[in-house]
Amino acid sequence: MTPPYYAVIFTSKQSEDTSGYSEMAEFIENLAKQQPGFLGIDSARSTIGITVSYWKTLEDITNWKQQTDHLQAQQLGRSQWYTFYNVKICKVEREYEFSAT
Amino acid sequence: MTPPYYAVIFTSKQSEDTSGYSEMAEFIENLAKQQPGFLGIDSARSTIGITVSYWKTLEDITNWKQQTDHLQAQQLGRSQWYTFYNVKICKVEREYEFSAT
Repeated sequence: MTPPYYAVIFTSKQSEDTSGYSEMAEFIENLAKQQPGFLGIDSARSTIGITVSYWKTLEDITNWKQQTDHLQAQQLGRSQWYTFYNVKICKVEREYEFSAT
Repeated sequence: MTPPYYAVIFTSKQSEDTSGYSEMAEFIENLAKQQPGFLGIDSARSTIGITVSYWKTLEDITNWKQQTDHLQAQQLGRSQWYTFYNVKICKVEREYEFSAT
């Protein structure tokens, strides 16, 4: 991807009640991929979960935050799946990478 | 943390040869915490690894990238531990969080 673009860094701690979580996570990730301005997503989970999604504009991020199914998932996240989460909205200014040959 | 500040999103895929990796990762994380401008770090690993470190200024990030022990670790990362990595330098513009009561 070519900067500038935007990243949403979502860090979270799960509660003990993870019933239905993986199905919802898959559904929401597939839904995100269909939104205008979606550029990509990276996820990993150890003690904490980190999901970073990438978007063309800040408006795309605002629209995704307010998407109906996503709002419902956020509500379930707060009531059931997460004890904590943090969201950071960032402008990606530079990027470089390494790939073994 | 109160925006604006900066984030380095480091995503990576490990090679099969991870000997010495966890010791180096711990050493480098402890070293990062001692650098000027360091604000925090989040890490998780599943299929890919994601480490996000947070810094006061872009200059702090440049200095950390060029720190001697860190340069040596980067070299070992390319020659031994990683088949791929990507680094994104970002300005954190907004932040909010949820904590279960």
